[in-house]
Amino acid sequence: MPRPITFLSDYGVTDEFVGVVHAVILHECPTARVIDISHGVPRQSVLAGALMLARSLPYAPPGVHLAVVDPEVGARRRAVALRTALDDRLLVGRATALLVPPAGRFAWGTEAVEISTSPWRLEPVSATFHGRDLFAPVAARLAMGEALADAGTPLDPDDLVRIELPRPEPGRAGRLTAHATVIDGFGNVQLDARPGDLESARLGREVAIGSDGRSARYLRTFADAEPGDLLLYEDAAGMLALAVNGGDAATELGGIAPGDDVVLKPS
Amino acid sequence: MPRPITFLSDYGVTDEFVGVVHAVILHECPTARVIDISHGVPRQSVLAGALMLARSLPYAPPGVHLAVVDPEVGARRRAVALRTALDDRLLVGRATALLVPPAGRFAWGTEAVEISTSPWRLEPVSATFHGRDLFAPVAARLAMGEALADAGTPLDPDDLVRIELPRPEPGRAGRLTAHATVIDGFGNVQLDARPGDLESARLGREVAIGSDGRSARYLRTFADAEPGDLLLYEDAAGMLALAVNGGDAATELGGIAPGDDVVLKPS
Amino acid sequence: MPRPITFLSDYGVTDEFVGVVHAVILHECPTARVIDISHGVPRQSVLAGALMLARSLPYAPPGVHLAVVDPEVGARRRAVALRTALDDRLLVGRATALLVPPAGRFAWGTEAVEISTSPWRLEPVSATFHGRDLFAPVAARLAMGEALADAGTPLDPDDLVRIELPRPEPGRAGRLTAHATVIDGFGNVQLDARPGDLESARLGREVAIGSDGRSARYLRTFADAEPGDLLLYEDAAGMLALAVNGGDAATELGGIAPGDDVVLKPS
Repeated sequence: MPRPITFLSDYGVTDEFVGVVHAVILHECPTARVIDISHGVPRQSVLAGALMLARSLPYAPPGVHLAVVDPEVGARRRAVALRTALDDRLLVGRATALLVPPAGRFAWGTEAVEISTSPWRLEPVSATFHGRDLFAPVAARLAMGEALADAGTPLDPDDLVRIELPRPEPGRAGRLTAHATVIDGFGNVQLDARPGDLESARLGREVAIGSDGRSARYLRTFADAEPGDLLLYEDAAGMLALAVNGGDAATELGGIAPGDDVVLKPS
Repeated sequence: MPRPITFLSDYGVTDEFVGVVHAVILHECPTARVIDISHGVPRQSVLAGALMLARSLPYAPPGVHLAVVDPEVGARRRAVALRTALDDRLLVGRATALLVPPAGRFAWGTEAVEISTSPWRLEPVSATFHGRDLFAPVAARLAMGEALADAGTPLDPDDLVRIELPRPEPGRAGRLTAHATVIDGFGNVQLDARPGDLESARLGREVAIGSDGRSARYLRTFADAEPGDLLLYEDAAGMLALAVNGGDAATELGGIAPGDDVVLKPS
Repeated sequence: MPRPITFLSDYGVTDEFVGVVHAVILHECPTARVIDISHGVPRQSVLAGALMLARSLPYAPPGVHLAVVDPEVGARRRAVALRTALDDRLLVGRATALLVPPAGRFAWGTEAVEISTSPWRLEPVSATFHGRDLFAPVAARLAMGEALADAGTPLDPDDLVRIELPRPEPGRAGRLTAHATVIDGFGNVQLDARPGDLESARLGREVAIGSDGRSARYLRTFADAEPGDLLLYEDAAGMLALAVNGGDAATELGGIAPGDDVVLKPS
């Protein structure tokens, strides 16, 4: 049985891009199993893709992990495949944040190859659809057990670009300046802070959020909040997040977008 | 070969929630087959999810049927798994309407377990992502043939909350007050009435719809209607539905939403 | 192992239609592999579906290719299955453009059957959901290796309706009137012209687009364009396309929609 393949991209589900990548993989490896993590990464949002990959990877069976989010089309990073030290996972995609195992969960790669001219590529390689012509056949061959070294030309893993994951800004005690990282489809706002950061900033279980200073309580579950209440909780990725019970926190807090500052003060 | 798993939720396809549930299932059961029924159930719409499940289940191979729509996060029902009398299907999800086999097609469960503290759960169980931590591993183990009794603690099936499915309001002859249940992506409006209800209300094949009284003919197929015509037909689920040939009935009828009254009178 | 099935439709991903088709296929053929090409074909856009199928099919393993886009519900074409001369592929769907192997890549069918009363259909066949009742079981049986001739009643392949694929309008030298065929999710505008058409019209590598006459350079890759530049390039399907590096060309060019004229002149 081939190794399972996970697939994450910013392709969306309207066009045929995702389907064609699946088609190429199944063409190369008829018994492949492909798990679509999501194709709803905001276009060209490398950071959002990296965070989504970090939240998902620990739950996926070790295998081949294909991730395609181009930072901007004119500034493409090298196409690479690399092996992680932990779990012997194989990551395939651009040498950007997307391939940096974030949050310390996976050790950095032990072996890497540049795959732009991989012998497994589909010729002619188009200028615009490397998911189809490059990444899909490489992922399929690796899933079938072919050697990483045969996928391209050797590369020093330490030579790859890494992204800085956002962190709350250090500030005076009693104040924490965090940043919104992800707004999910329910309007919940994930922050780049963890519950421990509340204590480090000497904040209690009741804080004021943003310039309006709307009060939020830190609660273990939504079940402890009244409908309409703003709450602060540890989300499923272990990060602090803001939610409105039965509502949309991002909208109610004035339209928070990824990257925005979110200041927490004593209420 | 494991039993097939169907999966229905209100998770949407933008976030990674659906992908992570798939990842956990494949991690537990590498040969699992998962059929995504839909993840477009309107958020927290237990009734819409129950109706969608009822329309889909008869066409799915008997197996494990995972359905996750939380009614409201603060008021969660028990997490359960149960066996249906008919077809020996295994339903996994919340003990709400979602798990009530609607429309009389499936007999009520013969065996049920509460799975909140299932030995198969992923520890630590997060407060907010039970699909990943609880439902996915339970569905995977049941698909692999492990015993339902081992999934949790016994529960009396008769003790579970059931929802009332909507029904047209009884009225005087020549008038039928139905309700919109589902608006599909084409703008067709499913009602909670069946073709037989027209006869019971002594309505003919030509009726007036709503306060505007726009005329609709009961036709067997769209092919019998002129472009732009409003028609009443028996939809693929056996229910009465309203459509505009080549148009969007829900919008043309003034923006009908699920739950709205739809009055049918002689035209 | 059954032959792989690809599946393309205008069903969207909100309703359960796609999931139910998968369910029926897996019910008939428990080891089926179904590749979703896309379900985001604009509603009833037979041409958009045909073009998407043409772009995808060469990358898919030869198998059963299910495509469901009804031109308009009242004017349904015959339901058919046919075998292509090249690659021995089996196409299942409506006898419209969707089944015409476009762009000359696949020879026209060598064997065709009308499947409206296929012995494999699910009875009763609903008036509105032939994907479930007709196309899915036929696709599943063909994937399992059952004979095409057994799927229905013989039909002369030459008797099927074919669509004309759009082509640029012939014009005077130094001018090319092309048409927008597809706008992808990034706002890139595919045209019905190929790079060779530029030369035929004696246009150089710098042209003016539309009535505004915005200048666009023909470039091999996005990487050669400055951010914000409009460029003309050969897209992944071998067609000319317009893009704005880091932007949305369709919007910036005044809201180009499929079917619109796009005039290219010397700049």
